[in-house]
Amino acid sequence: MSKNIINIAIIGFGNIGSYFYKMIESNKKLINLKTNKSILVKYICAKSLGKKRSIRIPQSKWFKDPIKLVKKTDVDVVVELIGGSGGIAKKIVFEALKNKKHVITANKSLIAKYGNELGHIAEKNKVNLEFEASVAAGIPIIRSIKEGININKINKICGILNGTTNYILSEMENTGKSFSAVLEKAKKYGFAEANPLSDLNGSDAESKIKILSSIAFNTVISSNKILKEGIQGIKLIDIYQAKKLGYKIKLLAISEVKENKLIERVHPCLVLDKSYIANINGVLNAIIVDATPIGRTVYQGEGAGPGPTSSALLSDLCSVAKGIVQYPFGTPNELQKKIDRFDISKTVYSSYLRIEVKDKSGVLSVITKVFSKNRISIKNLVQLPDKNKKLASIAVITHKNIEKNFKNLLKDLLKNKFVVEKPTFIRVEKL
Amino acid sequence: MSKNIINIAIIGFGNIGSYFYKMIESNKKLINLKTNKSILVKYICAKSLGKKRSIRIPQSKWFKDPIKLVKKTDVDVVVELIGGSGGIAKKIVFEALKNKKHVITANKSLIAKYGNELGHIAEKNKVNLEFEASVAAGIPIIRSIKEGININKINKICGILNGTTNYILSEMENTGKSFSAVLEKAKKYGFAEANPLSDLNGSDAESKIKILSSIAFNTVISSNKILKEGIQGIKLIDIYQAKKLGYKIKLLAISEVKENKLIERVHPCLVLDKSYIANINGVLNAIIVDATPIGRTVYQGEGAGPGPTSSALLSDLCSVAKGIVQYPFGTPNELQKKIDRFDISKTVYSSYLRIEVKDKSGVLSVITKVFSKNRISIKNLVQLPDKNKKLASIAVITHKNIEKNFKNLLKDLLKNKFVVEKPTFIRVEKL
Repeated sequence: MSKNIINIAIIGFGNIGSYFYKMIESNKKLINLKTNKSILVKYICAKSLGKKRSIRIPQSKWFKDPIKLVKKTDVDVVVELIGGSGGIAKKIVFEALKNKKHVITANKSLIAKYGNELGHIAEKNKVNLEFEASVAAGIPIIRSIKEGININKINKICGILNGTTNYILSEMENTGKSFSAVLEKAKKYGFAEANPLSDLNGSDAESKIKILSSIAFNTVISSNKILKEGIQGIKLIDIYQAKKLGYKIKLLAISEVKENKLIERVHPCLVLDKSYIANINGVLNAIIVDATPIGRTVYQGEGAGPGPTSSALLSDLCSVAKGIVQYPFGTPNELQKKIDRFDISKTVYSSYLRIEVKDKSGVLSVITKVFSKNRISIKNLVQLPDKNKKLASIAVITHKNIEKNFKNLLKDLLKNKFVVEKPTFIRVEKL
Repeated sequence: MSKNIINIAIIGFGNIGSYFYKMIESNKKLINLKTNKSILVKYICAKSLGKKRSIRIPQSKWFKDPIKLVKKTDVDVVVELIGGSGGIAKKIVFEALKNKKHVITANKSLIAKYGNELGHIAEKNKVNLEFEASVAAGIPIIRSIKEGININKINKICGILNGTTNYILSEMENTGKSFSAVLEKAKKYGFAEANPLSDLNGSDAESKIKILSSIAFNTVISSNKILKEGIQGIKLIDIYQAKKLGYKIKLLAISEVKENKLIERVHPCLVLDKSYIANINGVLNAIIVDATPIGRTVYQGEGAGPGPTSSALLSDLCSVAKGIVQYPFGTPNELQKKIDRFDISKTVYSSYLRIEVKDKSGVLSVITKVFSKNRISIKNLVQLPDKNKKLASIAVITHKNIEKNFKNLLKDLLKNKFVVEKPTFIRVEKL
C-alpha cells in the first residue's frame, strides 16, 4: 500500500464493530508508529443510523448500501463484521475482493465455507484477505501457524475454540448446576448468544478448526462432513463420574493427519484432570500445536468479546497498512493440496461410557459381557447405585479400540433389557 | 527480495547450526511453497572443517574467514550462530548489516546489548535483522508481540524464559535432591551448559526480557542495571516451606510499566501452586502478556534445543525470503522512546522469608518484633524446629510492602542475636 492515508469502511456496527471503531480512533498514533500509515474510518455501514448504540455513528460516515459501498473508489479496506456464511456478509466480502479492496473479517463460518474461492480472488487481485479474528479472537494463532511456526511439519492441533461451551462445562463442574440452568446464566452474562445452537452443537468450533487445518496442512478447506458432536447431551452425572475417574470433560476441536489423511473432529472429550487443557476454564480458549521440529507449543487467551476480537482486527489492519500482501492461507491458492479424509470408523481411542441400568443382581456381569462380546476391554469402572429408584449408574473407562466397535457396543447396550436409557459415550483424548 | 534464489551463509556450526542446516535441506520444498523463493546454503563457516560433527560440512561450502564471508557479493543472508555479546559474533553481525546483508541470529546477549545500534543500521540499509530464536527459542513470542498483538497497550510481561533454571527448580521439587546434585544431572543430560553461570545467575533471562520489553513498550533497550537475582541461593528447604505455604518457586523474568516508568526484573518468585505458571515444569518456557484490549494471552513451548531454535530461525528465513523488511523492534529506530526506570526500592510485593534461628523460648516474639519495627506485617508463618541442632526454621509470608522496607528488615534480622545465618528472601508474584 503506497498511499499514506488508508480509507476503511466498517460494515456491521454491533458490539464488535463499534468497539473496533473506538479502538482505531484511540490508537491512531500507535498504528502510525508501527506502519507509517494513517488510518481513516471513512464509512460506517449499518442497517440503521439512529439505533441506540454505546457509540454513535457520526452522520458524516454513515453509508446505507453495503454493496455500493464496497465498490467506491475511496475505500481501500473493507472490514466485514456482520457474520454468517451466507446472505449479505457473503455478498459483501466477494464483491469487495472482486473490486480489489482489502478485506478484514471475523467471520469464521464464511471463511470456513468459502475460504478457497475467496483466497483465490484475493490472490488474483493482489489484495489482503485477513481473518485472524475468526479463530480464538485475539490469540494470534493464525499468524503463529502462518508465520511463526510455518516451516514445521504440523502433526496435530487440538484446542478449546469455543468459549461458550467451555464456560458451561466449567460452571456445571464448579456450581453443580444443570446444563440448562448454566446456559441461562451464560445468556444473562453475555457468554452465550440468544440462539446458542451453533456454539452448543459444535458448528462454531468446526468452522474454526477447518480454518486452522487448512493453514497448518497446506490443504484446501474440505466441504466434507467432519465428526461433530455438541455438549447438549452432557449431564452433571457425567462430570461427577468423570471426576471420580480422574478426568474433566471439555469440548475439543482436533485436527491431525494420519497416514496422509485428515481427521477433523469436534466433540466432548475426557481429558486427565491434571493436564494443561483440563485447567482452561470459563470463556478461555487454548490451542495446542504438535509439530516437528518445534515440539509442542501452546497459545492461550480470551476467545471472544469486543476487546480480544478488536486486537486481532487491528493486527490485520496493520498487516494491510504495511503493504504485506501474503497468501491468505499461507500457501498459494493453486498449490493448496486436496487431502483425503481418514475413515472415522477406524480412529482409535479409549472411551468413557455411562450406562444406566436396573439395579438387579447379575447386571454387572451381563453388561461386561456385552463389552467383551464387542472385544472392548474395561480399564476402570465405577458403579453408583440409586437404591430408591432401583437403578444404578455404571461409568466405564475402556482400553483403546476403534470407533466402529464402540458404535456397535452402544447398539448392543441399548438393546439390553437391563439398560434403561441410551448410554452416554465420550471419547478420551490423551494430551 | 526480488531474486529467486537466496544465498545464505551459516556462521557457527555447532548443535544449532548443523541442525538448522539439516532442516533447511529437508524443507526446501516447503520453504519454496510458502515464499516462492529457493534457498541455497552457499557457505558454512566454522573454526574447523575437519571437526567431528553429526553432520559433515560439505567441503564446497566451507569458508574459513567469517569477516571476509559477510562481505561477499554472493551472500544475501548471514545467519550468526556463534553467540556471545562481544568478540567475533558482534563483529560478524555489525559487518554483515553494514554490508547490506540480511541477518538472522539467535544471539540474545548481542541483541540485548547492541540491539539499538544494530536496528539502526538494518533500517538504514533496508535489510532484515531477525532474532525470533533469541527469546524462548521456537515460541513465536517476538512475532506475536510485534505483529499479532501490536496494537495493544501492553501492561506486563512475565515469563519463564530460562529452561535450565526451571529444570533445576522442578527437579529439586520432584526428586528432593539438592541444587548441586540436580545441576550435575542437568549438565549430564544437556539441560545445562558446562559453564551454566549466565543461566543460573539470571543473565540469560535478563537479555531475553530486555528484548521483549523493547518490542512491547516501543522503547530503546536500556543499558541500566535491572533487578537481577539467580537461583543459586535456593535451597531444598525453601521449596518445602514454600509448598507448605501453598506456593512453588520459579525464576521469573518480568517487565512492566508503572507510572510511565519501566520495571524490569529477573529473580526467583513464589507463585501460587495452582497458578498456570507454577505448573510449567522442566525445560519449558512460558510467557504471560497482559495487555489492553486483548486481555491476557499466554505462549508456551520448549525454550531451547536445536529443533525449537531451528523452527524460529526458519520462520526468520521465510520472513527474509518473502521480502518483508520491517522494523526489527516493531517501531522505527529513531522513534523508539527512552523510558525512565522505576525506582526499584519503591516496588511493592508480599514476600517469603526463611529465617534460621536458635530454638529458644521467646525467639518467635523477638523475630516478629523485628518485623513490626520495620512495619512489615505477617500473613502466614510456619516454624520447623530441628531439636537435635537446637535450631528452628521460620518461614514467613508477609503482607505487601515496599522493597526498601524488606531490605531494612533483612539487615535487622541479620543483626539479631538469635538469627544464625543470612535469611532467605524471595518475592511473591501474584499472577
